[in-house]
Amino acid sequence: MEDNLSRSSRGKPIRCRAAVSRKPGEPLVIEEIMVATPMPREVRIRIICTSLCHSDIIFWKMKEFPGIFPRILGHEAIGIVESVGGEVDEVTDGDIVIPTFMSDCGECIDCKSEKSNLCSKLPFKVSPWMPRYETTRFTDLNGEILYHFLSVSSFSEYTVVDIAHLTKIDPAVPPDRACLLSCGVSTGVGAAWRTANVEAGSTVAIFGLGSIGLAVAEGARLCGATRIIGVDVNPDKFETGKKFGVTEFVSAENSGGKPVSQVINEMTGGGADYCFECVGLSSLVQESYACCRKGWGKTIMLGVAKPGSQVTLPASAILHDGKSLTGTLFGGLKPKSDIPILLKRYKDKELRLDEFVTHEVGFEDINKAFDLLIEGQSLRCVIWMNK
Amino acid sequence: MEDNLSRSSRGKPIRCRAAVSRKPGEPLVIEEIMVATPMPREVRIRIICTSLCHSDIIFWKMKEFPGIFPRILGHEAIGIVESVGGEVDEVTDGDIVIPTFMSDCGECIDCKSEKSNLCSKLPFKVSPWMPRYETTRFTDLNGEILYHFLSVSSFSEYTVVDIAHLTKIDPAVPPDRACLLSCGVSTGVGAAWRTANVEAGSTVAIFGLGSIGLAVAEGARLCGATRIIGVDVNPDKFETGKKFGVTEFVSAENSGGKPVSQVINEMTGGGADYCFECVGLSSLVQESYACCRKGWGKTIMLGVAKPGSQVTLPASAILHDGKSLTGTLFGGLKPKSDIPILLKRYKDKELRLDEFVTHEVGFEDINKAFDLLIEGQSLRCVIWMNK
Ligand SMILES: [Zn+2]
Ligand SMILES: [Zn+2]
Ligand SMILES: [Zn+2]
Ligand SMILES: [Zn+2]
Repeated sequence: MEDNLSRSSRGKPIRCRAAVSRKPGEPLVIEEIMVATPMPREVRIRIICTSLCHSDIIFWKMKEFPGIFPRILGHEAIGIVESVGGEVDEVTDGDIVIPTFMSDCGECIDCKSEKSNLCSKLPFKVSPWMPRYETTRFTDLNGEILYHFLSVSSFSEYTVVDIAHLTKIDPAVPPDRACLLSCGVSTGVGAAWRTANVEAGSTVAIFGLGSIGLAVAEGARLCGATRIIGVDVNPDKFETGKKFGVTEFVSAENSGGKPVSQVINEMTGGGADYCFECVGLSSLVQESYACCRKGWGKTIMLGVAKPGSQVTLPASAILHDGKSLTGTLFGGLKPKSDIPILLKRYKDKELRLDEFVTHEVGFEDINKAFDLLIEGQSLRCVIWMNK
Repeated sequence: MEDNLSRSSRGKPIRCRAAVSRKPGEPLVIEEIMVATPMPREVRIRIICTSLCHSDIIFWKMKEFPGIFPRILGHEAIGIVESVGGEVDEVTDGDIVIPTFMSDCGECIDCKSEKSNLCSKLPFKVSPWMPRYETTRFTDLNGEILYHFLSVSSFSEYTVVDIAHLTKIDPAVPPDRACLLSCGVSTGVGAAWRTANVEAGSTVAIFGLGSIGLAVAEGARLCGATRIIGVDVNPDKFETGKKFGVTEFVSAENSGGKPVSQVINEMTGGGADYCFECVGLSSLVQESYACCRKGWGKTIMLGVAKPGSQVTLPASAILHDGKSLTGTLFGGLKPKSDIPILLKRYKDKELRLDEFVTHEVGFEDINKAFDLLIEGQSLRCVIWMNK
């Protein structure tokens, strides 16, 4: 079927359905749009399924720039290559690919370095354009442009993605599992594995047990952490957390009048070896720092904070306590090399992905996926484009 | 001579000269004091020479607690063991030892760990007491107690130091060189070597070219850094800096109206691999962070900031830039194992120490050493107890 479509569509615009976000916070509208042919180094892909990530919600609600409308949101997905633009050798029609908001150009100093996953050729930015050309590939049937999102825009049957933002994967992994590695699960697992490099036998504290925090737990479990302390306002999250290796729970709202950092310092006899902030609150980064172990503790920030937020730490603690603070995008993973490793670990039944998928809907019910995530009912809701 | 004195003095208080700091900011007074016998796990040492470190000045001026008077300051020194208290096997009378403000008890989880130099059994604190007993070993001739400083109090012909704060060293190294490893030079060299683990071929920026900053440069040079950028308000420091490997200079006051971080980002095409803050200003920690390389840059704080100072960083930078911030006491060195390594590197003519010693005075001229450091004329002024 793909081959037939490719043969008929290659080199021409495709008319297909997309869920367009036309106004901040208003339900997406499924409408027909035109998807242009890929430019050099770009690839047009048919989305198989996409899952909803918290950042989609944030940008869907955002009234000021970088919020922009009309836009095609969605950035956690899996697809099949429909056709490629010029200068693309890495994938070919019919390949199964995972798009990522992170680029992995393979050419710049950062992509070539072992130390960084922050491509400097196509650096991460929340832009409404294609990353290489600053134009869009989407128009509505009135000829008006539709903006892109995070170099992916997966809430469309077809989308165009730069080859630097695509990872070719083993087609044997079920798409509704593989797509989770496109953003959230990779971010969390990678933060424990690549950014923190959690040592076996260590103690980890995770602030915020949403999907990202749970993925951190899963990554820490894979690394052999012995104690994984989950912190959340909602104690129900502990039950969910247990599936991903969370061994203890601290209520962020009901910790006996003590700051959470104090509770964790007491529980651990001096702090966790690694603290992960997965909410995006400066105050929680500060709490995390306050309860990571003197001498070697690392605090890793994953949560997306409000624009303009500042993190304030006492200078004396920085000097005297030998702790470190860092942050991570996409868990420090290099998409093209690390996503295949994680997929293999899933196939080898080491990495858990199934447990993240709590809901599935058809494309026409995409707004339901938004409701479920906003209400805190879902971890990941997979949206099937053709079901 | 030591043996004779030991035989005669062991087990009895020693009457000797000390430079007592009686009032904040007033010249030290050389007077006779009594030095008690060492308690179990303590060692009484005769100071051979001591050098003046910036922290001595800070606490000499400090009017509020932890400033306290009368006190015997001094914490960068070398001595010879006069007698030992009970339970001390590690050193014996006549051994040459370096006292350090950092403990290395060898028994606690931190001392046993490769990852930390922050002894948790006798943790660093600015206390007026002996570290293990919270009493003093000094009295004046009126029987009034004199307070200790940083577990060393080397501005006295004799002092008592806990065995956890003493490193036995090779007596072949000249004392006026070896004593520098007791605090400042170790802190700077260690910060580059142990804390940052500077990679060969990398670019380093150093904020503040006092002794500590120059020692960082020396450490970075030893690690094989190719570019070592010094930042200071005083351009004369560049000439001094060149002796320790500084290759470029940025004026902190006269950088063409641009923030120093911008100048360094431009010079380096994206930031230094390592930035060291050696002044103790929050604003400079922030500048350092702003010009360390995205993706892998490390900012290391060594400077002692004013009590209550806060360091504020933008949350978005922490999340997006993959930089890390940490701090270090005593350069991350474990005194008992790392000081001998540095001394060997000095003997092997790799580590430069001679160039730090700009002045020498006799004990009776100790206040001159204060003047020289305050006026910025000296790097290290060695104060000889018997010259
Ligand atoms: Zn790149
Ligand atoms: Zn996402
Ligand atoms: Zn210890
Ligand atoms: Zn010092």
